[in-house]
Amino acid sequence: MEEQEHVGYERRGPLAIIRLERPDALNAITYPMIAGIERRAREAEADPEVFAICITGEGRGFCAGIDMSVLSAHTQGNSPQRARSEGARARPALFSFLLDISKPVIAAINGVGAGGGFVLAMMCDLRFMAEDASLITVFSKRGLIAEHGTSWLLPRMVGLGRALDLLWSSRKLEAEEALRIGLADRVVPAKRLLDEVQDYVEQMAATVSPRAIATIKAQVHRHLECGFDQAALESDALMTDALRHPDAAEGAKSFIERRPPRFAAWKGEGQ
Amino acid sequence: MEEQEHVGYERRGPLAIIRLERPDALNAITYPMIAGIERRAREAEADPEVFAICITGEGRGFCAGIDMSVLSAHTQGNSPQRARSEGARARPALFSFLLDISKPVIAAINGVGAGGGFVLAMMCDLRFMAEDASLITVFSKRGLIAEHGTSWLLPRMVGLGRALDLLWSSRKLEAEEALRIGLADRVVPAKRLLDEVQDYVEQMAATVSPRAIATIKAQVHRHLECGFDQAALESDALMTDALRHPDAAEGAKSFIERRPPRFAAWKGEGQ
Amino acid sequence: MEEQEHVGYERRGPLAIIRLERPDALNAITYPMIAGIERRAREAEADPEVFAICITGEGRGFCAGIDMSVLSAHTQGNSPQRARSEGARARPALFSFLLDISKPVIAAINGVGAGGGFVLAMMCDLRFMAEDASLITVFSKRGLIAEHGTSWLLPRMVGLGRALDLLWSSRKLEAEEALRIGLADRVVPAKRLLDEVQDYVEQMAATVSPRAIATIKAQVHRHLECGFDQAALESDALMTDALRHPDAAEGAKSFIERRPPRFAAWKGEGQ
Repeated sequence: MEEQEHVGYERRGPLAIIRLERPDALNAITYPMIAGIERRAREAEADPEVFAICITGEGRGFCAGIDMSVLSAHTQGNSPQRARSEGARARPALFSFLLDISKPVIAAINGVGAGGGFVLAMMCDLRFMAEDASLITVFSKRGLIAEHGTSWLLPRMVGLGRALDLLWSSRKLEAEEALRIGLADRVVPAKRLLDEVQDYVEQMAATVSPRAIATIKAQVHRHLECGFDQAALESDALMTDALRHPDAAEGAKSFIERRPPRFAAWKGEGQ
Repeated sequence: MEEQEHVGYERRGPLAIIRLERPDALNAITYPMIAGIERRAREAEADPEVFAICITGEGRGFCAGIDMSVLSAHTQGNSPQRARSEGARARPALFSFLLDISKPVIAAINGVGAGGGFVLAMMCDLRFMAEDASLITVFSKRGLIAEHGTSWLLPRMVGLGRALDLLWSSRKLEAEEALRIGLADRVVPAKRLLDEVQDYVEQMAATVSPRAIATIKAQVHRHLECGFDQAALESDALMTDALRHPDAAEGAKSFIERRPPRFAAWKGEGQ
Repeated sequence: MEEQEHVGYERRGPLAIIRLERPDALNAITYPMIAGIERRAREAEADPEVFAICITGEGRGFCAGIDMSVLSAHTQGNSPQRARSEGARARPALFSFLLDISKPVIAAINGVGAGGGFVLAMMCDLRFMAEDASLITVFSKRGLIAEHGTSWLLPRMVGLGRALDLLWSSRKLEAEEALRIGLADRVVPAKRLLDEVQDYVEQMAATVSPRAIATIKAQVHRHLECGFDQAALESDALMTDALRHPDAAEGAKSFIERRPPRFAAWKGEGQ
């Protein structure tokens, strides 16, 4: 039974929706689900009609974490990391392949995101939360640690003090506070959650260059790890490249002609 | 007279309270007080019954900074740093030994924290503030600089612009604004200040692993200084260690059995 | 006509105001304007009577970005960077010379700041915004990238998620939200904008050391690029220097004598 992926896929215009589908287990993650999310995300990246990817949960939970079956295997040296490293990626850490997807990845947090579900939310670029959704780190309650890069990501989203508070206390972070501290990017009524993500993505798809999106995502992540001068020099080089690409001419032309731009489709770095 | 420590110590369940006790001088810091705070903090770290440490001030002030007697000695090359470096630590900067205490250190800011008192508040992991308390950097008013690592810590708590504003203007930062910008973690009525810290610590002591707390504190600080991949790889190794520790089994077992966990006591890294 | 600078200069007590003066073009930037801003900023830095610099726009806009004439030249390899590198500076990126001005540089954002105008606002140390002003990144709409170091600066001001949202969507960021997320430092009624900047600067000029301001600006920027221990060690060395400077004695003396300090004038690092 655990061989089943429990991952749904749906297209709504420029938005690809990846849905965790184990609602009875509050979408707790199994190995096949991890593989399924990655496969779907890479397919969506390669699909030129997809502008952005949304990850959400079926039912009343977003993701209750790693299923106990996986945690047991992990204790025996059969970790999700190893399962994942059979793929072609270099980045360590659960769900960190999402950081390398060159399209926006938006978590549509429909209910509780806890433990591995908290990690999943962090690895997405943006977080839209339903008003009654919440996030819990959980690790400290299980005698564990700040897992899978969350000790790196969280302080860079909310600041040092708030990161320690959340990782230590494993308290429930409600959507409103998540918005206030910079962990959530939007808080919306539950029934509007996917519509708001879709509106946001359609607005971008109609107005901004997918190639620019991909470059900016890579810039922002790399430039968290280097000094200002190096970042500025690299950006100057990228700017020179960008100005040679037809998207720059189309961007200027559409602006002058006061019409929507028609940017080139994007299907990932390897295109 | 300055040989007196003026540092009180009190236990309230899992919380150790270190109290600055020079209320007539708004708890301005002397050498013996610095030594007293460190001694008390290390004792509390080594005490397996202590889960977290709180630093607060007697009377109406939190800490008015370094006493003029210390500043004068400093001008003559007899600095607090040197006094402190007689200990076994490597980290530079006033009060930075608190960053290495492997238990939560919470500032209970009961009144004005200024100058060295601002540094003390920054070196604590979390800051609970009384509604009428405030923080002032002061350095620029004394013709000095951003002292003792505050130029490093403050932007990582509140962001670049806000850090410059506070360090430059030496304006009084009220509790409400401190909360909004991420410098304060809680703002509570003055009479409830220590109770709120105690509630927070008792809640943690009853539900989360002290070993996890220690590991997470070290992770968060180290991972502010390295790249994502290195942080994630280190976290994977720490996770493997954690899974071998009885706390992980107890964390899972207590969760399944729906009962409070009984985690191992913690008395510092050298235990 | 483009040889004209379109940059005004005004002194109001300790505040130097640099004003973009192409109101009919919403102060879109030309090469001569870039050169004019830099020349004025360096003059203000060297003027011992100037405590801080404010950059604002004439008319209803702050700065609508790089003028199309410049963008066209850029496409042909004649970039603003190269124009600027004829000067004596090493830092790359448009307007980044402002980061090296050893006095506070405050953007008084009176209307829309977009594209290059967004970059200009980021390169200032603080941002005061009129209630009806707004900021837009714009780059993604033009098929470009996160220009001139904004991918480095923005996440360090507002956090990772919010930076991606703003750089990707090119949505209009209103003043209130800018304040909430840490991009704006003050939001004030439009008619009070320059008065508020002036009040802030006069308050600092009357109470804090210009030399301290310069040192703190350099500390904060350098310490975003190094580890805590290095930052603390450097700060200890700077503290030793500061304590030897007359400003430290005056700071202590004026405090004890309960009178305003008279700090040494400051005319840049090379003084």
